[in-house]
Amino acid sequence: MLKPGDAIGILGGGQLARMLALAAAPLGLDIHIFCPEPDSPAFRVAAGHVIASYSDEKALAEFAAQVSVVTYEFENVPAATAAFLAQRVPVLPGPRALAITQDRLSEKNFINEIGLATPGYLPVDDADMLVEAVAALGRPSVLKTRRMGYDGKGQAMIRPGTDLAEAWQSIGRQPAILEAFVPFEREISVLVARGQDGTVAAFDVCENVHRHHILASTLVPAALGPAASHVAIEHAARIATRLDYVGVLAVELFVGTDGSLLVNEIAPRVHNTGHWTLEACACSQFEQHIRAVAGWPLGASHRHADAVMENIIGAEADAWQALAKTGALNLYGKKQARPGRKMGHITRLKGQKGNKP
Amino acid sequence: MLKPGDAIGILGGGQLARMLALAAAPLGLDIHIFCPEPDSPAFRVAAGHVIASYSDEKALAEFAAQVSVVTYEFENVPAATAAFLAQRVPVLPGPRALAITQDRLSEKNFINEIGLATPGYLPVDDADMLVEAVAALGRPSVLKTRRMGYDGKGQAMIRPGTDLAEAWQSIGRQPAILEAFVPFEREISVLVARGQDGTVAAFDVCENVHRHHILASTLVPAALGPAASHVAIEHAARIATRLDYVGVLAVELFVGTDGSLLVNEIAPRVHNTGHWTLEACACSQFEQHIRAVAGWPLGASHRHADAVMENIIGAEADAWQALAKTGALNLYGKKQARPGRKMGHITRLKGQKGNKP
Repeated sequence: MLKPGDAIGILGGGQLARMLALAAAPLGLDIHIFCPEPDSPAFRVAAGHVIASYSDEKALAEFAAQVSVVTYEFENVPAATAAFLAQRVPVLPGPRALAITQDRLSEKNFINEIGLATPGYLPVDDADMLVEAVAALGRPSVLKTRRMGYDGKGQAMIRPGTDLAEAWQSIGRQPAILEAFVPFEREISVLVARGQDGTVAAFDVCENVHRHHILASTLVPAALGPAASHVAIEHAARIATRLDYVGVLAVELFVGTDGSLLVNEIAPRVHNTGHWTLEACACSQFEQHIRAVAGWPLGASHRHADAVMENIIGAEADAWQALAKTGALNLYGKKQARPGRKMGHITRLKGQKGNKP
Repeated sequence: MLKPGDAIGILGGGQLARMLALAAAPLGLDIHIFCPEPDSPAFRVAAGHVIASYSDEKALAEFAAQVSVVTYEFENVPAATAAFLAQRVPVLPGPRALAITQDRLSEKNFINEIGLATPGYLPVDDADMLVEAVAALGRPSVLKTRRMGYDGKGQAMIRPGTDLAEAWQSIGRQPAILEAFVPFEREISVLVARGQDGTVAAFDVCENVHRHHILASTLVPAALGPAASHVAIEHAARIATRLDYVGVLAVELFVGTDGSLLVNEIAPRVHNTGHWTLEACACSQFEQHIRAVAGWPLGASHRHADAVMENIIGAEADAWQALAKTGALNLYGKKQARPGRKMGHITRLKGQKGNKP
């Protein structure tokens, strides 16, 4: 168990690391960031930072020596990096959770192995396998690289008429999966925290709207009955427990038109769809993650208000003056507002006098 | 008006600067700290820091060049430091508010000049003036240095039998005031924010309990009728307006046994008695102060829960494990738990499911 004054290392220096650092401070815990990009947003709220490649073993060893535990803000941490660090200091969530969730095929296999349902999928390792998979799963379907995809990157929609050779080319001829296209009623997610003692604390189920493959908004509570909510939370808790997970984990699910729940994706980290917990819960997803990896007791996940979180994407951040008047603004300190880049978010609490401003 | 990416400089690197830095980050504003003490708590959550004396003009000039505005976490900023910085960059709250509030005599004169009441007081510049003042104000009364007093330091109680020469010696024969002792029903404080456009936003009146001259706990709402609460807030707003103040200001008042309100002290900064706003209000005192000095619109001061804040003093911080289970813990990252030192605080919200853990 970490004690006040101890330090947590975070791999990655983006907005999730930044919000983790802000949550660690009130617990008296210091944050050190390891990130290859200079001037990363999290550097400016951390006790220390290292700018180096994830393959720089000298830099990694020095980083490990400064901290009591290492965690990460993104699931694409190279396995060799995690293994190198884990020889020196605990890495949480553990290497197994990382290995499973950074590969779409192993992730979907795992989900099905523990008795939960996913959309149909087949592995695609070459152009011929793609032809066979499309024949089996039909069109429309979605070709996704097994590794390194996010915000719609590394994906190709297979529609009636799509040339399969071109699709295979477009994702870079990498190991991939083909997923059956699932008509769904809504997309939901469940954020759960699991402590080192195995305690699981779930946040309320929230509902997500994506635009251009990027999360646009999250609404809580989701328009879902109590029974389905209970099942969704039970699914997320099962995933966390079977992964022997420590930290916050996000599970994205599709709610079918018949009310069925299919697990779409697992993210072994704090997650964009949990940002509303900063304002609507006593203990946010960020504080829960810090508490979990520090070996502390988890905080309360209870929600005290309904909330809507909207992402601020690219040039939308130019309207910060107007935004600062209408809700709880959270800007990430990114210097350049490139198209599609998440620059911040804003949360509005409903039916509560304490809304900002 | 500062824009996201701009930097605010803070003089002082203690817990107040630390909590200001944590509030600035979500607004996309960077914080630079200037503080003579190495390893200050605020350094570890700031984009940059300077360790130098407040009289080091070279260091001050470099600091001023890095930031768009300078504010401070303590009222004892040397006048020469504030003046030197103010030639280079706006210093907020302004030098006049600082000059008035860092001298107990000028502060009490100011309060009376704007039509508000204080306990009786007389200036004491030498031993003879002390004898005369005690004759006029009676015993018990309190001898206080005009400058640099806090947490009971620089004070001597004049009781029946107290040797006046010894009392004068005990406070270091410095310019002082003698204050009449006021029997009071309770101590309250009002935190108000005033924006650059003159808008005033007040937090609800809270009630304070001191032990050994150090704040022990703050309770909100105060046990005060709506009329008296209204008057207390009006007093604080008048002080802020007449000082042409920008930022958060704390006004401590005594509530007499007859219900009368006497202004005890003004602090030109965020204040220990406003820490409950972190959990109980949408926009905390720290965010309000940052918004004000940045020239942004103020946030909402509405309170959404009743709260009790307790300070964690000295060795009480050793119980952090138990404390982490019972409320919203806020530790300040101080390495040594000296007796009387504020190490952190804990806030418990009442009647709200979302309480931690």
